[in-house]
Amino acid sequence: MENNRRPESMQRITTPELAQAFIDEQLTAIRAQVGSRKVLLALSGGVDSSVCAALLIKAIGRQLVAVHVNHGLLRKGEPEQVVEVFRNQMNANLIYVDAVDRFLNKLEGVFDPEQKRKIIGKEFIDVFAEEAGKQDGIEFLAQGTIYPDILESDDGIKSHHNVGGLPPELHFELVEPVKFLYKDEVRVVGKALGLPDSMVYRQPFPGPGLGVRCVGAITRDRLEAVRESDAILREEFAAAGLQGKVWQYFTVVPDIKSTGIRDGKRSWDWPVILRAVNSIDATSASVEEVPWPLLNKITARILSEVKGVNRVLYDLSPKPVATIEWE
Amino acid sequence: MENNRRPESMQRITTPELAQAFIDEQLTAIRAQVGSRKVLLALSGGVDSSVCAALLIKAIGRQLVAVHVNHGLLRKGEPEQVVEVFRNQMNANLIYVDAVDRFLNKLEGVFDPEQKRKIIGKEFIDVFAEEAGKQDGIEFLAQGTIYPDILESDDGIKSHHNVGGLPPELHFELVEPVKFLYKDEVRVVGKALGLPDSMVYRQPFPGPGLGVRCVGAITRDRLEAVRESDAILREEFAAAGLQGKVWQYFTVVPDIKSTGIRDGKRSWDWPVILRAVNSIDATSASVEEVPWPLLNKITARILSEVKGVNRVLYDLSPKPVATIEWE
Repeated sequence: MENNRRPESMQRITTPELAQAFIDEQLTAIRAQVGSRKVLLALSGGVDSSVCAALLIKAIGRQLVAVHVNHGLLRKGEPEQVVEVFRNQMNANLIYVDAVDRFLNKLEGVFDPEQKRKIIGKEFIDVFAEEAGKQDGIEFLAQGTIYPDILESDDGIKSHHNVGGLPPELHFELVEPVKFLYKDEVRVVGKALGLPDSMVYRQPFPGPGLGVRCVGAITRDRLEAVRESDAILREEFAAAGLQGKVWQYFTVVPDIKSTGIRDGKRSWDWPVILRAVNSIDATSASVEEVPWPLLNKITARILSEVKGVNRVLYDLSPKPVATIEWE
Repeated sequence: MENNRRPESMQRITTPELAQAFIDEQLTAIRAQVGSRKVLLALSGGVDSSVCAALLIKAIGRQLVAVHVNHGLLRKGEPEQVVEVFRNQMNANLIYVDAVDRFLNKLEGVFDPEQKRKIIGKEFIDVFAEEAGKQDGIEFLAQGTIYPDILESDDGIKSHHNVGGLPPELHFELVEPVKFLYKDEVRVVGKALGLPDSMVYRQPFPGPGLGVRCVGAITRDRLEAVRESDAILREEFAAAGLQGKVWQYFTVVPDIKSTGIRDGKRSWDWPVILRAVNSIDATSASVEEVPWPLLNKITARILSEVKGVNRVLYDLSPKPVATIEWE
């Protein structure tokens, strides 16, 4: 039985000193657990898996085999950026896997969110197992699981692909160095590890990526609308000085259409939903009160630049009663 | 071939004097057209049909048989208010028809917006025909068609139940005294007719009512969520002094669900979409920039008071590219 409960005695990590103490402790623990053996890591490029990767690279260098799976559900420009930062700048042992068709074909026609998460989670495991098979002597699987993931799974609210999804026949042992950290602590630790700000303050991104933001059954065209509108939102938030200030922001495209008028003709297209929230630890969240001129600018850009879209909505819902993600 | 084109020479009605001239002209025209015969009117209670009714009551008194059909798609408290104002205060010859089950049964499982509009429009005509059959010598059908309805139908953007839906075998002749008026002109004329402000500045309401705001196939529970959230929005806009200032505001509940948390458990409920726009003549519209404290208050009330709802969204889309209504 694995220990999935944060120790009562564990102090909240709020300072560089506390972060350094945590890092030293984890480096010792990782080295003790892993020895000279090899570790496989799912490196999505989000802050959790990036901090996890940085800890492992620091602890065991190129014994870490970091696998970046492009499952077609990543943000615009993200796969390229992961390769640049980890392979080129940090000299990681990085394997890039193009699995776009594999994932999207498996997801075709699947509209149930839990089912989508499970398929994406299972494909992840399968891809890692295949990569492990190509390597000699992989014995560990590292994961960027953080504490809210564990808490939410306990509550039965959502399944997380990076909690307990490993089939026992794979004989991987888990390495989860950040599993007792809250989100704010992950960032403090990331800073102390010397990760660049653009990575540490990067917005959280769920394991299933844009897949849970392409609400309902995923199609390539609607997924493209999510990706393009998300890029516009991030660009405009950055230009307005909100990057790093607003905790998380993204777009959602549900599988509904409404009437509109384009070039004098009736249109029948999707809405894009903007979501921007603030939170300390992801267990609750409040809505960012975005200034109207910025909302209007983002709306105008999305309506003119994103194909198949004729409406833009702003999600006003705090967590609870809503969750941060839609699925 | 009926004349459906506003005369080039027609002046925009902006003053009480111009309104009075229009009224005098219409009273003469109505009396000339109708003589001592009877007219049937679909009185929805919206500003268009109310102004149409007031013109007819002024012109021909109780020769007008005003039929108010409660099709189950009306706003909260609306059927009661129509009876109070027209029967009790204006002494109209008003017939109240409870057709809730009839409409909702016909609409069950119908998700195509054009199909929904057509069914609602056809049922309207049928109900009138039945009411006409119960009266002696009805020869006319009055309708509160206004000019943007005609223009939008010409453009093929939407079908309007009150444009050209009459089957020829009914032998009704149309009386449409406000069919060349833009929305702002309808209000000026309504004021000049002595209608109460609460009616003249009442928000426009489409013929199919809440039916086109219960996006997709109409169900009784989702329709109730539209009605209750709409009542909260109207109440809070009134309390904030926005009634009569914002041109049109309403709520929409599409047939999609998303995750949430209620009482610590996963919820899977609908979003409510808030729509508030300003417009002169309904051919274009801009979005009302509602202050954040009001948006937050409305959101909190809807999330706590409306059953089956776990999100609130604000529609940021101008017309064009979107339309004011969703269907």
